[in-house]
Amino acid sequence: MCELLGMNTQVPATVSFSFQGFAKRGGETGEHADGWGIAFYEETGCRTFLDHTPACSSALADWVRQYPIKSRNVLAHVRKATQGSVGLNNCHPFVREWQGKYWSFCHNGNLKDFDPELPCSPRPVGDTDSERAFCHMLHRLNQTFATECSADLEVLAPCLHQISTEIARHGTFNYLLSQGDLLFAHCSTHLHYLVRQPPFSQAQLVDDDICIDFCQHNSAQDRMVVVATHPLTRDEQWVKIAPGTLMVFDKGLPVWQHTVS
Amino acid sequence: MCELLGMNTQVPATVSFSFQGFAKRGGETGEHADGWGIAFYEETGCRTFLDHTPACSSALADWVRQYPIKSRNVLAHVRKATQGSVGLNNCHPFVREWQGKYWSFCHNGNLKDFDPELPCSPRPVGDTDSERAFCHMLHRLNQTFATECSADLEVLAPCLHQISTEIARHGTFNYLLSQGDLLFAHCSTHLHYLVRQPPFSQAQLVDDDICIDFCQHNSAQDRMVVVATHPLTRDEQWVKIAPGTLMVFDKGLPVWQHTVS
Repeated sequence: MCELLGMNTQVPATVSFSFQGFAKRGGETGEHADGWGIAFYEETGCRTFLDHTPACSSALADWVRQYPIKSRNVLAHVRKATQGSVGLNNCHPFVREWQGKYWSFCHNGNLKDFDPELPCSPRPVGDTDSERAFCHMLHRLNQTFATECSADLEVLAPCLHQISTEIARHGTFNYLLSQGDLLFAHCSTHLHYLVRQPPFSQAQLVDDDICIDFCQHNSAQDRMVVVATHPLTRDEQWVKIAPGTLMVFDKGLPVWQHTVS
Repeated sequence: MCELLGMNTQVPATVSFSFQGFAKRGGETGEHADGWGIAFYEETGCRTFLDHTPACSSALADWVRQYPIKSRNVLAHVRKATQGSVGLNNCHPFVREWQGKYWSFCHNGNLKDFDPELPCSPRPVGDTDSERAFCHMLHRLNQTFATECSADLEVLAPCLHQISTEIARHGTFNYLLSQGDLLFAHCSTHLHYLVRQPPFSQAQLVDDDICIDFCQHNSAQDRMVVVATHPLTRDEQWVKIAPGTLMVFDKGLPVWQHTVS
């Protein structure tokens, strides 16, 4: 399997503290050593860093940890290969442009007998179930919103939830998805989130001997959601997302949520 | 305007030496200080590094210069903004998936009154003429090869040349394009290339006081093409590509070429 990390904020912020602990799960405190990736949105732009080496020892992950990129939406992934070989083409997040935005996607799980018919584009480059699922989702959205080049959350979220529920019948389908403004989080087994906002407190990483006092790094207008497969800190109120749920976060808060049993 | 750098090789190789000189043109020896980007293909995977700061002083460009990524196809760009603001969303190379491959594109030039009608996807994320041209090219290819999910060079190259010639009526349209195997280079004003192969010699960078003895870094089976807006070295045989030409490189050699006057 794999692990997921997402961040959605009101004001652009760095993910360095969370990524510090998360990257250790890529081969040191966790067995997810088959590559990693992270996508940062800056305004409408998106840049993705991918590497097929373990996150805990990758020179690129080291650079990302130390270089403070401020972003309103971040998605990260450490991989333990189930389907698909170890290689750059199978590293998450996968990115596709749709409706003039970069959509990025990372997946934790394993989909069995999932081989949907796909058009010439979007089409997977690698050979993971994850990228197939992402392309299928975009293809379905494309069919549903064929003539509209902009889909509102109120119509997009239920449609995405329906597609996700159908795909989840094939196996574990926890994912994070973003188009730069919104962070979509679908839970089929394990996914947690927390809202970090004033009054800020201290927190200790689960995976590293590092403590941070958020008062010293944040101001009154800061607010963020952090989503992770398993809680990244010891002293904060992580909320377990119920299986069958799609949550949508905007500006550091949950804004849409629905669960199917 | 901007400057372009491309590399296409027989055996995966690093672009470090060429990029060392090229990055200096991003604000030090050249005025192209409005961002930069580079795409590396590794097998079918592709990773792109983008930054809206000058390449000559970018911490990320510094990392890319020092970290030897071996690749068979590389595209790089230093930007001097003509159309579109300075920002990550307007940094080249732009990347889109088509027919199960990542296509990356960077442009040097300025297209006037170029505003083609585009579908919902591919659609530009930023606001450059370059990304509009890239999306238009993919849209046209999509229409031409609507039912085939794989297009051979013999039919793809003439089609691409035709589209490029039409776009070039709007202004300067030098570009580099790759899908991982092939490097396409279209010249409308300035573009040069060289084939570096045995017997290897020495070369001195134009933009930096660095000399390299390729004998020490290459073996008998190495062969590569380097394409650049202006020659990057002093002691090698750079060939000026004629305006109106589309060239295609594969495994370090030109394999297709056509010129319209």
